[in-house]
Amino acid sequence: MKPNVRTFIGCGAPYEEAVAAVFGAPFDSTASFRPGSRFASEAMRTDSCGIETWSPYQEADLEDKHVIDIGDLELPFGNPMQAVSEIEQLVRRLLTDGKKPCMIGGEHLVTFGAVCAAAARYKGLHVIHFDAHADLRDDYMGEKLSHATVMRRVWDVVGDGRVYQFGVRSGCREELSWALSHVYTEMFGCRTIGRAVAGIGSAPVYITLDLDVLDPSEFPGTGTPEAGGVSFSELLAALLEARCLNVVGFDICELSPHCDASGVSTALACKTLREMLLAF
Amino acid sequence: MKPNVRTFIGCGAPYEEAVAAVFGAPFDSTASFRPGSRFASEAMRTDSCGIETWSPYQEADLEDKHVIDIGDLELPFGNPMQAVSEIEQLVRRLLTDGKKPCMIGGEHLVTFGAVCAAAARYKGLHVIHFDAHADLRDDYMGEKLSHATVMRRVWDVVGDGRVYQFGVRSGCREELSWALSHVYTEMFGCRTIGRAVAGIGSAPVYITLDLDVLDPSEFPGTGTPEAGGVSFSELLAALLEARCLNVVGFDICELSPHCDASGVSTALACKTLREMLLAF
Amino acid sequence: MKPNVRTFIGCGAPYEEAVAAVFGAPFDSTASFRPGSRFASEAMRTDSCGIETWSPYQEADLEDKHVIDIGDLELPFGNPMQAVSEIEQLVRRLLTDGKKPCMIGGEHLVTFGAVCAAAARYKGLHVIHFDAHADLRDDYMGEKLSHATVMRRVWDVVGDGRVYQFGVRSGCREELSWALSHVYTEMFGCRTIGRAVAGIGSAPVYITLDLDVLDPSEFPGTGTPEAGGVSFSELLAALLEARCLNVVGFDICELSPHCDASGVSTALACKTLREMLLAF
Amino acid sequence: MKPNVRTFIGCGAPYEEAVAAVFGAPFDSTASFRPGSRFASEAMRTDSCGIETWSPYQEADLEDKHVIDIGDLELPFGNPMQAVSEIEQLVRRLLTDGKKPCMIGGEHLVTFGAVCAAAARYKGLHVIHFDAHADLRDDYMGEKLSHATVMRRVWDVVGDGRVYQFGVRSGCREELSWALSHVYTEMFGCRTIGRAVAGIGSAPVYITLDLDVLDPSEFPGTGTPEAGGVSFSELLAALLEARCLNVVGFDICELSPHCDASGVSTALACKTLREMLLAF
Amino acid sequence: MKPNVRTFIGCGAPYEEAVAAVFGAPFDSTASFRPGSRFASEAMRTDSCGIETWSPYQEADLEDKHVIDIGDLELPFGNPMQAVSEIEQLVRRLLTDGKKPCMIGGEHLVTFGAVCAAAARYKGLHVIHFDAHADLRDDYMGEKLSHATVMRRVWDVVGDGRVYQFGVRSGCREELSWALSHVYTEMFGCRTIGRAVAGIGSAPVYITLDLDVLDPSEFPGTGTPEAGGVSFSELLAALLEARCLNVVGFDICELSPHCDASGVSTALACKTLREMLLAF
Amino acid sequence: MKPNVRTFIGCGAPYEEAVAAVFGAPFDSTASFRPGSRFASEAMRTDSCGIETWSPYQEADLEDKHVIDIGDLELPFGNPMQAVSEIEQLVRRLLTDGKKPCMIGGEHLVTFGAVCAAAARYKGLHVIHFDAHADLRDDYMGEKLSHATVMRRVWDVVGDGRVYQFGVRSGCREELSWALSHVYTEMFGCRTIGRAVAGIGSAPVYITLDLDVLDPSEFPGTGTPEAGGVSFSELLAALLEARCLNVVGFDICELSPHCDASGVSTALACKTLREMLLAF
Repeated sequence: MKPNVRTFIGCGAPYEEAVAAVFGAPFDSTASFRPGSRFASEAMRTDSCGIETWSPYQEADLEDKHVIDIGDLELPFGNPMQAVSEIEQLVRRLLTDGKKPCMIGGEHLVTFGAVCAAAARYKGLHVIHFDAHADLRDDYMGEKLSHATVMRRVWDVVGDGRVYQFGVRSGCREELSWALSHVYTEMFGCRTIGRAVAGIGSAPVYITLDLDVLDPSEFPGTGTPEAGGVSFSELLAALLEARCLNVVGFDICELSPHCDASGVSTALACKTLREMLLAF
Repeated sequence: MKPNVRTFIGCGAPYEEAVAAVFGAPFDSTASFRPGSRFASEAMRTDSCGIETWSPYQEADLEDKHVIDIGDLELPFGNPMQAVSEIEQLVRRLLTDGKKPCMIGGEHLVTFGAVCAAAARYKGLHVIHFDAHADLRDDYMGEKLSHATVMRRVWDVVGDGRVYQFGVRSGCREELSWALSHVYTEMFGCRTIGRAVAGIGSAPVYITLDLDVLDPSEFPGTGTPEAGGVSFSELLAALLEARCLNVVGFDICELSPHCDASGVSTALACKTLREMLLAF
Repeated sequence: MKPNVRTFIGCGAPYEEAVAAVFGAPFDSTASFRPGSRFASEAMRTDSCGIETWSPYQEADLEDKHVIDIGDLELPFGNPMQAVSEIEQLVRRLLTDGKKPCMIGGEHLVTFGAVCAAAARYKGLHVIHFDAHADLRDDYMGEKLSHATVMRRVWDVVGDGRVYQFGVRSGCREELSWALSHVYTEMFGCRTIGRAVAGIGSAPVYITLDLDVLDPSEFPGTGTPEAGGVSFSELLAALLEARCLNVVGFDICELSPHCDASGVSTALACKTLREMLLAF
Repeated sequence: MKPNVRTFIGCGAPYEEAVAAVFGAPFDSTASFRPGSRFASEAMRTDSCGIETWSPYQEADLEDKHVIDIGDLELPFGNPMQAVSEIEQLVRRLLTDGKKPCMIGGEHLVTFGAVCAAAARYKGLHVIHFDAHADLRDDYMGEKLSHATVMRRVWDVVGDGRVYQFGVRSGCREELSWALSHVYTEMFGCRTIGRAVAGIGSAPVYITLDLDVLDPSEFPGTGTPEAGGVSFSELLAALLEARCLNVVGFDICELSPHCDASGVSTALACKTLREMLLAF
Repeated sequence: MKPNVRTFIGCGAPYEEAVAAVFGAPFDSTASFRPGSRFASEAMRTDSCGIETWSPYQEADLEDKHVIDIGDLELPFGNPMQAVSEIEQLVRRLLTDGKKPCMIGGEHLVTFGAVCAAAARYKGLHVIHFDAHADLRDDYMGEKLSHATVMRRVWDVVGDGRVYQFGVRSGCREELSWALSHVYTEMFGCRTIGRAVAGIGSAPVYITLDLDVLDPSEFPGTGTPEAGGVSFSELLAALLEARCLNVVGFDICELSPHCDASGVSTALACKTLREMLLAF
Repeated sequence: MKPNVRTFIGCGAPYEEAVAAVFGAPFDSTASFRPGSRFASEAMRTDSCGIETWSPYQEADLEDKHVIDIGDLELPFGNPMQAVSEIEQLVRRLLTDGKKPCMIGGEHLVTFGAVCAAAARYKGLHVIHFDAHADLRDDYMGEKLSHATVMRRVWDVVGDGRVYQFGVRSGCREELSWALSHVYTEMFGCRTIGRAVAGIGSAPVYITLDLDVLDPSEFPGTGTPEAGGVSFSELLAALLEARCLNVVGFDICELSPHCDASGVSTALACKTLREMLLAF
């Protein structure tokens, strides 16, 4: 008999054979309103047994892919710089080993660590960003590393014209104004994903999905819900349209399971991760 | 003064005059993820006082119908075979007495007992099935009687071409493949209800409504929510389109009131039951 | 250092300079099902820090307007007549001082106090009413002042043809029948807001928003949720279409924060109030 | 088959044979902090199936007693005077019919109606009062009828020296000072119940139990919890010590089931009611 | 890198070196009131990171022991006989391999499987039983295998005078009467644990802890809470007094984590399991 | 009319007249298990209206004291060093202005900022510390500033023999061992508070109360509950015994209101703060 192994459903491949690696980044220290996304990865592993490994959307089965779930990083709460650094190191190693990194956040700041590693390995990295919030402030209450600045930090790394935002419906005047000349932003929806697909072409791309892009009716389990979001069906369609891209890594962030006692948000996050693992 | 009588709103007819009988089947022992549907009938009676007996959709009043609420069966938790048998006996008796059975589950397995009774009385019974899950496995972890096998058991009784499924968006590869040659399945929605109506014609039909067919945004109160479901409006339209059929009985299953502390799911279930009682 | 001042986000103007005044009316004593709307104003102040003052819908910032939040009335629970009277007095004074009253309910009965004051000041007052329930009973369990009779009381004051209802989908036979000849009612939706805008023209108008007009999927935090409601986007569009009217006051009622532990309903109410403050 | 009858466990006697009658008084309109006690009686009926009818404390079975549960009064929310009056009428009738009234509140104000009826029938009525709060204000925010004034109103009826309070640990300076010369008050505990028993002797006595007398650790499900209360064991001992008195009626108030999602408070209330029904 | 291993805190020994094996038995199908204990083992693993491995009560560290956590059995919901059989098989194997079985329930019925295995291996097995409920019915609603009959089934196996019950405060007249001549029962408390210790001497003993023996104030997270229970300190003292016995296995049952959203019950269960692992 | 002023009950003195100043320090970024104490001060202000200003324990009224509530600091989440620094600055200023600082945490780390300021002003500062956890690690996952190290940092400032701990029942082997020679620790309870009182004499003393010292039955609303704690009555007695000391400041930490939806924990915290404000 063996110690208890627990993975996201259908992610039980040995490391050597795996082409993708799921891991959790349980960090939420800079959350300014309601923390709790640190519990997302564990909740998703537990509740993933409520969905099937088979996708009727893509007519494919997660068990046919070769994915490993390597568990969670142990990140220091209260030290964003160190947390970002540890994420970057892990993603570097996964990329070196030829495994596609699939990160479960955590607050959105964790994306910065993964993008740093991906940009170091892949020249000309582009980033597709689904989010209710622009996350483009240069600092937040004086802090450079924050959930509210993360896409500005990402921009620091990848540069003008390489960030595509979808579903944004909240931001301060300054950041939304700044966005106009530095990133592509579709406000409120994700109907123009085709423009990103066309613009990126065969360049390497990292996809970051802040789940609060979804309408709070379908996804209430997040710290800062914003009414007027996209539906699961719209998001899924956009993700499938991006299937043709050269996706070198992705993440799924900002599930706060305790915010939604019904479990609906966690179930939706599980289903979305299954579809992303099958698609990319 | 008399003992406390408590019924679903507007269902206070005497048994002799009643044309339909509402009853609860509080059983959820085979639920594999989150049990709790055993509490549905009680919760619906309590919360039914939050809605009106008048339907603005059908311009009709439940108090003008002759419906009795005879309370709940007392079912043995942990013994699915016995539970199914007791449901079958009650439904037989109701049918013999000329009352249309209107069952409030419980998990979906309870449908099997009602269908057995209805099929015994009505030759050529058809079944309309709203559900997020196909429920067509032949066994589940070795068990023949389970929420996950119930529609396969129903098929055992009614045969090929007599089961119409709507809204299915979850299943394993095998059951969805099996479905292709044995039942009619509209994946994801219920837009083709007209095909069922046309195909069934004047044959007797039993309608089983697993409420998780609804999108979890509108109905979070269920054990295994599946994103991407139908809306209340779509479901109501489909039910009203089926109004012309010869409906000999129906059920409404899988409300787990404790999964949705807001009470929204229970309220929606009450409203749906009101509409079904008025329609059929 | 000063005592703790706490306002709805962006509503920190001095009284002298303010053109609009937000206040809370924490009263829910006649709620017949689930009370709790008394906690709405406090919850909205707390959670308003989760949204921005900038609206991407109207491209405007709440901090550029001159709004004061003067806190909550202290209303006597269990005495509807006194509560209505105290609300009326405050609104009279605000109108006298040239501040537009923006009331956060409380149950819907609070609207009656505000409308009395507004009708006293503005001849020919019209009322636009968003609600899932008609609220047109003449009495409720013998009581004249109740959440279920409030719009009938409003009609007592403003008269035939001056009340426009939107989104209604619940009522008893009698009140819906009565409505046909006394008020304008769009059942289920708010697509015909243009008719109200045209009909009212330049007359003074009070807008009362019972938040349960929204679909419970988007707004579960209310005492008597009714499936089949309007979406936030539809409501926002209707409100913006009414922007051209001469709005002399408005309220936002029936948020019961404890009914929705996820906080989504409170967040949506905050966002809606922000948009109303910017629009009117 | 018959309509659904639902009673508190073991309270199914026919009215003619019953010696005691349980009924609910679902009223909480004057609650100043968190309403919700209106749901107590229904919740207690539902959850009473979780306890046994047999008491190991008194070695007796509730099914051997002759108790009927006649359901709930339908009280007008927002009208305390009418509510008190309807309670008084029902209790008068029960007393006339020779049934001991056993009322499930509701907020504490409901006690006033029952005491009025009992005092009218029994000369020299005494009252034993368990409560965390003195409830002796003469008015509360100008209102004479309130949960915060109920024992002052009771005193108006029964007079000096006839009210015995136990467990009080909250009140304003004035009411606690007033209490010194008008009622017997044991602060914090109920160790001196023997003094009440001795003082009352064979006079008729009404017992009112505001469940918030219990420590919030054992009974969190109440609107205004006060730390430092008595334990269930202490309360039970006091009640059993009062068994020798001539108890002509009693009530159990201020359970707010929604305040305690664990169900522990409702279960404790059920058990306490069982013990009171067996004892008195 | 390796798949995600997750254990109860401090239980990471390799199987070969382990002297004790923790495993979960997630089964709750016969629960008659509120199911949910199936989630206990997973919740305890997750929340065990909130406590230390060091015990200040026993001045010992769990990391110095050699314990393995082998995860959960996969038990068929709705089939109690099969579930008991699978538990028995696993415990037999553990005993054969020289590992002390430490089972996390699940409902109390799971104990029967473990006791069958232990009694088969150890002649003259005694059982110490902490519980609020006697669990001594011969059948429950016709079923022989139930949470309400489990100690009667245990008695079938070990015989008269070998079962010691503590903390019992609920049961029907018949089972409590039957108990008098077949088992040792201390009602309400566990002060006489010394009598069990003396009576058992060096005979092999299995300890089964139904956590609802604790007072619901300290342990609200269980399906059928019973007021008037023992405190954590009293239970811990009793367990430590039993440390001198020849304990061949034990279990800890009936935590229903969803019943206590505060997490207090799960935390207490973790701490109690830590102490039991250190003591026995 | 004025902007909305909101204070802890009875704390409305003008700054000039105030002898004590309540403020909130909403920071919880280093919480390793369940964050949420950032919401404590706001929740306490809101729920303080559920208690009286009069204390029957001390026969005194908070309104007779001169206390101001100056609101909350705005602290940068994710930056512990900066947060501690801002707290220290505020406390310095309060001490300079002759106001006793009364801080509402927040996680326990906030104490460090206040102690630094107090120690700078008062030579020979002693610290009385109530807590379930020793908080004496030198670092926690490499971090020097953490809720788990805060009392070690305090010791860095005040030195050997000046820290008195009560109620501790959790810690790792190393820190409990270290404590033996550096601080006074009463494990499990606070019965020896008299020794601290005697030892400290007339020296200045700062009191820090981590509310998780209380038993989780009475205080479930905290991130890391530890069974076996002290009761409210025991804690109150200890605090009152310390009344004779020269208390120069105090705090009350680690209430996480969302962990206890019943509101019992917040109510207890309010009552405890009232008693501390009256006592010191």
